Amino acid sequence: MNPDITRERENATFDVGTMTNILDGGPEKTKRRREIESLVFKDPDFDEEDPNFLSRSERYDQAVRKSAQMILKLREFGIADPEEIYHYKSMAKGNQNEALGLHSVMFIPTLYSQCDPQQAKKWLPLAESFQAVGTYAQTEMGHGTHLRGLETTATYDPATQEFVLNSPTVSSIKWWPGGLGKSSNHAIVLAQLHSIGKCHGLHAFIVPIRDMSTHEPLPGIVVGDIGPKFGFNEVDNGFLKLENVRIPRENMLMKYAKVEPDGTYVKPPSAKLTYGTMVFVRSMIVGESARAIAKSCTIAIRYSSVRHQSEIRPGEPEPQILDYQTQQYKLFPLLAMAYAFTFVGQYMTKIYHRISGDINQGDFSELPELHALSAGLKAFTTWETNSGIEVCRMSCGGHGYSRSSALPDIYVEFTPTCTYEGENTVMMLQTARYLVKSYRQAKAGQQLSGIVSYLNESQDRRLQPQAVSARPTVVDINDLTSLVEIYKLRAAILVEMAAKSIQQELQRRISQEDAWNNSAIDLVRASDAHCHYVVVKVFTDKLGEVGDTAIHSVLSTLALLYAMNGIAKNSGDFLQAGLLSVPQVLQVSIRIKELLSKLRINAVALVDAFDIHDKKLNSVLGRYDGNVYEQLFEWARRSPLNATEVHESFHKYLKPLRSKL
Amino acid sequence: MNPDITRERENATFDVGTMTNILDGGPEKTKRRREIESLVFKDPDFDEEDPNFLSRSERYDQAVRKSAQMILKLREFGIADPEEIYHYKSMAKGNQNEALGLHSVMFIPTLYSQCDPQQAKKWLPLAESFQAVGTYAQTEMGHGTHLRGLETTATYDPATQEFVLNSPTVSSIKWWPGGLGKSSNHAIVLAQLHSIGKCHGLHAFIVPIRDMSTHEPLPGIVVGDIGPKFGFNEVDNGFLKLENVRIPRENMLMKYAKVEPDGTYVKPPSAKLTYGTMVFVRSMIVGESARAIAKSCTIAIRYSSVRHQSEIRPGEPEPQILDYQTQQYKLFPLLAMAYAFTFVGQYMTKIYHRISGDINQGDFSELPELHALSAGLKAFTTWETNSGIEVCRMSCGGHGYSRSSALPDIYVEFTPTCTYEGENTVMMLQTARYLVKSYRQAKAGQQLSGIVSYLNESQDRRLQPQAVSARPTVVDINDLTSLVEIYKLRAAILVEMAAKSIQQELQRRISQEDAWNNSAIDLVRASDAHCHYVVVKVFTDKLGEVGDTAIHSVLSTLALLYAMNGIAKNSGDFLQAGLLSVPQVLQVSIRIKELLSKLRINAVALVDAFDIHDKKLNSVLGRYDGNVYEQLFEWARRSPLNATEVHESFHKYLKPLRSKL
Repeated sequence: MNPDITRERENATFDVGTMTNILDGGPEKTKRRREIESLVFKDPDFDEEDPNFLSRSERYDQAVRKSAQMILKLREFGIADPEEIYHYKSMAKGNQNEALGLHSVMFIPTLYSQCDPQQAKKWLPLAESFQAVGTYAQTEMGHGTHLRGLETTATYDPATQEFVLNSPTVSSIKWWPGGLGKSSNHAIVLAQLHSIGKCHGLHAFIVPIRDMSTHEPLPGIVVGDIGPKFGFNEVDNGFLKLENVRIPRENMLMKYAKVEPDGTYVKPPSAKLTYGTMVFVRSMIVGESARAIAKSCTIAIRYSSVRHQSEIRPGEPEPQILDYQTQQYKLFPLLAMAYAFTFVGQYMTKIYHRISGDINQGDFSELPELHALSAGLKAFTTWETNSGIEVCRMSCGGHGYSRSSALPDIYVEFTPTCTYEGENTVMMLQTARYLVKSYRQAKAGQQLSGIVSYLNESQDRRLQPQAVSARPTVVDINDLTSLVEIYKLRAAILVEMAAKSIQQELQRRISQEDAWNNSAIDLVRASDAHCHYVVVKVFTDKLGEVGDTAIHSVLSTLALLYAMNGIAKNSGDFLQAGLLSVPQVLQVSIRIKELLSKLRINAVALVDAFDIHDKKLNSVLGRYDGNVYEQLFEWARRSPLNATEVHESFHKYLKPLRSKL
Repeated sequence: MNPDITRERENATFDVGTMTNILDGGPEKTKRRREIESLVFKDPDFDEEDPNFLSRSERYDQAVRKSAQMILKLREFGIADPEEIYHYKSMAKGNQNEALGLHSVMFIPTLYSQCDPQQAKKWLPLAESFQAVGTYAQTEMGHGTHLRGLETTATYDPATQEFVLNSPTVSSIKWWPGGLGKSSNHAIVLAQLHSIGKCHGLHAFIVPIRDMSTHEPLPGIVVGDIGPKFGFNEVDNGFLKLENVRIPRENMLMKYAKVEPDGTYVKPPSAKLTYGTMVFVRSMIVGESARAIAKSCTIAIRYSSVRHQSEIRPGEPEPQILDYQTQQYKLFPLLAMAYAFTFVGQYMTKIYHRISGDINQGDFSELPELHALSAGLKAFTTWETNSGIEVCRMSCGGHGYSRSSALPDIYVEFTPTCTYEGENTVMMLQTARYLVKSYRQAKAGQQLSGIVSYLNESQDRRLQPQAVSARPTVVDINDLTSLVEIYKLRAAILVEMAAKSIQQELQRRISQEDAWNNSAIDLVRASDAHCHYVVVKVFTDKLGEVGDTAIHSVLSTLALLYAMNGIAKNSGDFLQAGLLSVPQVLQVSIRIKELLSKLRINAVALVDAFDIHDKKLNSVLGRYDGNVYEQLFEWARRSPLNATEVHESFHKYLKPLRSKL
């Protein structure tokens, strides 16, 4: 154990185990998670070569092997609870992805939710026995977020009672689905349904794409891997071009909509039912943000505690880089954010389960709010985490750039969350739509419920952007409740400003749609402020649940830092709205420096509390024992370029070059 | 040619060729650059496989081949001017790096500058004929920016007239030098010189590391590749562990300092001489920032003009995504920044050459200013570009994540500039040191010259942070000169605040060094504001040189957008300092939206003007002809995973899995 990191741990003022329980959601959860994780890290079958040393094809091979192994072991251990499966897989995957992820995350769940009873009887056993390995093919080369734009067609032929599937253009080629390129023999294909000369919009079809025994592509199917990406290189994201591919009528998923044998189309009863999954996945991503930034902070803070560099006082030994104020300023606000997002993740799970219960009882009233919240928070937390990971990486200097740090892997695997499951800007605008609608309702005198009820208050107070002098500033900047209040007022004001921008555009006689587009910057800003308010509020509320004094104290410091750092970064908003005075903003900057120095002593303990096993972290810089340099040398020696002392390029190019000069 | 992109070009209001000349620094420069570039893109020897399809070892092999080829062809074509070599190599390298880059950038120049005449006679011919392939080994595993911390030792043994080199600890292993791992047979090693029981600090030694004919490592040398990185995977960044390696006394570079045969140490006459190279490299990086963000904008803006998605008005065809205000808001400020940084790059080159002239005549007076400016601007431009590239990538949606977009390559190759040649935070603090020193001189009544002379003005005006109401705001936000003025005042105020923070810390009786560290956040902020001012000023000054009315108009719009966007992002600073009123900040937000919509028509032409050849861009999304989708499909089909229809993992894992379930 590195003596620096040992000393850090000895100096901590709170009990790390108790904090871990809070982060996990209770001591029982921690215990069970660790049991499950130990099933992986004690299992020699998961001792594998670092994928960074492998070629693309070897990486994919390793990932398929691991997927198959996980499936068998999960059954063997009888692990079936989704949360427990999640823990098992997270541990086994480390910083990489699952090759067959979409089979279990999209293919099987879609069969469950959209097959009629007869279809379920046929397809579920095939899928669960991996005779049918499947994926979910929605996005096309030319079409992502906007589903109505998809071009793939499924035309019903009553003569043979078949659908004929086609990719009519290059841009209609299915593109991106995970597992589509090489692994799957079936795909659920989203296509525009045509029957008896009429288009009925998007529907889902089960399309066999490869022979179930030889795995060769079937006639009319052009399928393959879409090529190397920034990350996800163990996954065969694929393309699929359909050329007059015929499937039986029964391969349309018919739980809701139907096509009769004669071609008659039967509409689905409601469109709201598919809403739920989307909301669930986005809520889950909030938790993923928390985990990604927690991993990154663990690496950067542990490394900063064992790395010595430069000098603060001449003649003294080089200090730990964690002693530099600039290093603390890079990392501690992100550490605070990691805690904040963890609690927001817990909050989203709780609210999702509550509302799901309501929905199952036919009460859809809270769904729009949950939809808006999950969209906005998905965007807010992924954007913040995305840039935060890179700050962590760069705070490790040169070594952060080495794959041995794991930070490049964490970044490239995380960054697609800003794009998939709803592109972030689109998500922010969806939340804004809800906020503006709520604002208008409040303005019309309607009493709002839920988290947007503050829009009623702002109506009451007739808040508006105004000069500093016009509003008395009574806020106590050291009081979290006051800070929550000004975050709320900031959101209210920015929602109002966005709504007014739309109003002004409309007065210039442009259409509702153009007015919306011409106010989009303001709308995104309003959503961002709304989400920021929710995060600060959730973190503050969480403190109320914490009994342990030492833990309450350090969490309060983190919450204050999170809130104050957000104010410092957006001080223009708070000044503009008259929510803070100039001296108060100056005071916030000074307080931030004090909070950084207060957190210094607990920094390592606070990342230890995330309890991320070395095997899961897979980072030379972030090792629990702090023995960084020895391991960095060990790791480097395994680099494939070191397989021979003399690389063949010497004989091929360097030696011949001499004779030509 | 894609009709959308053709229409964009037809609508442009200015002449693209004229703009290109301005960006190149004159029509002659454009002509010559194009001639040189055509030598590459017409040369079939440079038609190579996309490195993204290759394994690490193949990538390295390809890069060595290309390096050797470039060396031969440059001699063949008689290209010897550094700027022309730069153009030739940039074109040949595309978005990758040169395997033997350090041989020509560091090894040979160091031999030129630090060999005594006898050494030069021996080593230069060896290096230029590639008998000796060399690198520059400075950083160690445990030591980067802080040179005095380096641990490698070179101990003189008068008995044999040799130096004995050692890596006494794991952390002292040389780490990171490019070309060290596999390519080089010599390294210039920086080591602590010990002679007759005394340490004389860092000196440079030529150390043979591999046998010149077999290329096998020499006795006592442990050398190899440091393993895969985020990028730079075609370069063999290496490690070097020295175990009692003996080199003759003549292998110490002895132009300045010397060790006599008996071990007597002779000091160098001045330390300032090595200063120049550092400043030069940092100035060059400013230009690299401009080129990287120009490339990224070219890709994102061209793609946004051919990509159609979603709907603004219901029922109408999907609009070009460039029509969305949010997309414009992501990209156009970066486009403006690309222009700004290009002009700052030109400015740095000019000022570097002027000051170099002075230095050659023994006048060092302007060197500190140039040093501070190059350090700060290196940090400012690389940080801004770094995050800007990622904004461009994510603005391309899913396809930006594909390696075919080139944006992942551009990012991973660029991001180390934030760390190498002086870590950015350290750079900002160096600039801050100069600013605070200048501030104190101004306060003491000294008249400052050069770019910091505004610190005199602020003394005269007794500026200080104060409430908005306390200072009349006379600035015209639509006038660039006024904006330059408030950027200047913001910098002055933030420098003053940082200086005062140090003062306050000192009053708490802490040491000068701790006071500095406890004010580091303020110091970085002050440097950032100073650099931001310089960029806005240089861009504004550039407009004065532009005669063409159409071009002047569009450049003014870009400059305004750049300045206003900076104000909007940092509105807190301007409000806090009373430099703008609340209504003016609101006005700035509205003006930004107007400027975006004004730039829309010229966006494609403005990136065309960067004149980045398709071969250099190497991006499917950024192609000049806009035919994105067809080429994306072509590119994907070449993915190595598509070499066989059925990947072996099917037979190895998927098929067997079925029988076990």
